[in-house]
Amino acid sequence: MTVTREDVQRAATRIAGRVRRTPVLQVSPTLTLKLELLQHVGSFKPRGAFNRLLSAKEQGLLTGQGVVAASGGNAGLAAAYAARELGVPARIFVPVNAPAPKVARLRTLDADVVQVGNEYAEAYEAAAVACEESGALLVHAFDQPEVVAGQGTIGLELLEDLDDFDTVLVAVGGGGLIAGISTAIGDRAKVVAVEPELAPTLARTLAAGERVDVQVGGLAADSLGARRLGELAFEAVKANSVRSVLVDEDAIVAARNELWHEYHLAVEHGAAVSYAALLSGAYQPVDGERVVAVICGANTDPSTLG
Amino acid sequence: MTVTREDVQRAATRIAGRVRRTPVLQVSPTLTLKLELLQHVGSFKPRGAFNRLLSAKEQGLLTGQGVVAASGGNAGLAAAYAARELGVPARIFVPVNAPAPKVARLRTLDADVVQVGNEYAEAYEAAAVACEESGALLVHAFDQPEVVAGQGTIGLELLEDLDDFDTVLVAVGGGGLIAGISTAIGDRAKVVAVEPELAPTLARTLAAGERVDVQVGGLAADSLGARRLGELAFEAVKANSVRSVLVDEDAIVAARNELWHEYHLAVEHGAAVSYAALLSGAYQPVDGERVVAVICGANTDPSTLG
Repeated sequence: MTVTREDVQRAATRIAGRVRRTPVLQVSPTLTLKLELLQHVGSFKPRGAFNRLLSAKEQGLLTGQGVVAASGGNAGLAAAYAARELGVPARIFVPVNAPAPKVARLRTLDADVVQVGNEYAEAYEAAAVACEESGALLVHAFDQPEVVAGQGTIGLELLEDLDDFDTVLVAVGGGGLIAGISTAIGDRAKVVAVEPELAPTLARTLAAGERVDVQVGGLAADSLGARRLGELAFEAVKANSVRSVLVDEDAIVAARNELWHEYHLAVEHGAAVSYAALLSGAYQPVDGERVVAVICGANTDPSTLG
Repeated sequence: MTVTREDVQRAATRIAGRVRRTPVLQVSPTLTLKLELLQHVGSFKPRGAFNRLLSAKEQGLLTGQGVVAASGGNAGLAAAYAARELGVPARIFVPVNAPAPKVARLRTLDADVVQVGNEYAEAYEAAAVACEESGALLVHAFDQPEVVAGQGTIGLELLEDLDDFDTVLVAVGGGGLIAGISTAIGDRAKVVAVEPELAPTLARTLAAGERVDVQVGGLAADSLGARRLGELAFEAVKANSVRSVLVDEDAIVAARNELWHEYHLAVEHGAAVSYAALLSGAYQPVDGERVVAVICGANTDPSTLG
């Protein structure tokens, strides 16, 4: 099971008009921000969700049973949004302790929110069973080919919209975004993965040489806290020689603050890590190296920005 | 005294590299947002300030006495920012009752903040006297040719960056932005001015056929609350047949909320009026009319966005 650049190109055609073509902001001669936080429901996730749903629809696999996902975060919002746009129901499984505002937001997207179990592993199990029983379509948060291909469309947009660049910095949780972008970009630029020190899923996986369970926590765990890297992500980062850098909590907070104060962008912690890699020196460009930082999520409490 | 399209083009050359070329976000086939809120210090004002300072510098008029402005808002921030970038001092005059956070923010830009009088008219008088005495350069908030020409560079960017559009919606306070944009765009598209019902400076001026003092208030008064339209603005709106529409307070609040919830943009009330004109129907495009709403300011308390 692997995702190709052609899969990403097909995804771009498929989801055109369903997702926003997000703009870039050049902030210096060598630094550009890809403003993916302006995407529908505030993260890149609708790209993958739409590609998953529309691919299934082409194959007659999107039935009146609709879709199922297990996520109270950006992946759940994206699945619910895409389902609503395509006129099918969405059932979103979350643990019983999922924060009330997240559950409420899913319901504003007309999702049927099912609270089950004490953690996501249990919610995911329940979601998988529900799919088996009902024939609904499972939308994984990161480890499905259509999801990866959809996220990769960001990479194609960068290649089309920018004259030239050397390096792209991408946040990693389960790895759907890095898998897609590194596949889309291939050897046209260097793709660098950035993770919180407290959620080093890719770094530990690369160190172990195989996918392993990793303890995750910290400020960005709500979006980057996947305990195990996706299989597709592992394949893609190996195939595209993606290196990984880590940023600490202070760097994430400083980057999020600077994105707000300097660029007026309201960014969630997980989406600040790419910029944090530059600010902290975890990634140090050489002289003249043209870097793109993907800013991939806006779902944050704005009262914490001031 | 008038500003020409050539003045705007010269301004664009002069300020290139000093201001951000802000991106556009196409949100539907017929609606595009110009994301000028991502500009330095959170509003369009640095365009005019840099053009004013750099023009003076070319003429040897920017001395070690630096610049003076009377504004605790976006114009003051812009003057302070531009002065700091060009290595000259800035003295910013504000009333004694200016909010402490605004004074503090000006000081983080190394400005010398002078608190004098009970309202802006008095602060402005003191600023003018200070310029007379010291030879410092006065940067007006809206009614100077270089300031108007600088703001107009937004119009040139729209003409360059968009394939085609019919209409631009622009917020009006003292009128520097509408003067510049309507001069830049001329008859290439329709330029529509949007004002709060509670700060109808342009609407009353057009109705009276001359510049008159207008009572101003409401949620957007901090950025759009000029009591008298600028002379240059009056000339420009007449020359370019700019029409004016009004939006009420509820429409401004609804637009600001929607810009946050749908597009993840943190926008100040005054910068939400262009979008409010569409949302409320104060401006009703015909079928297929391609509209650009300029979103021109981000200086807002983020804790009021949730």
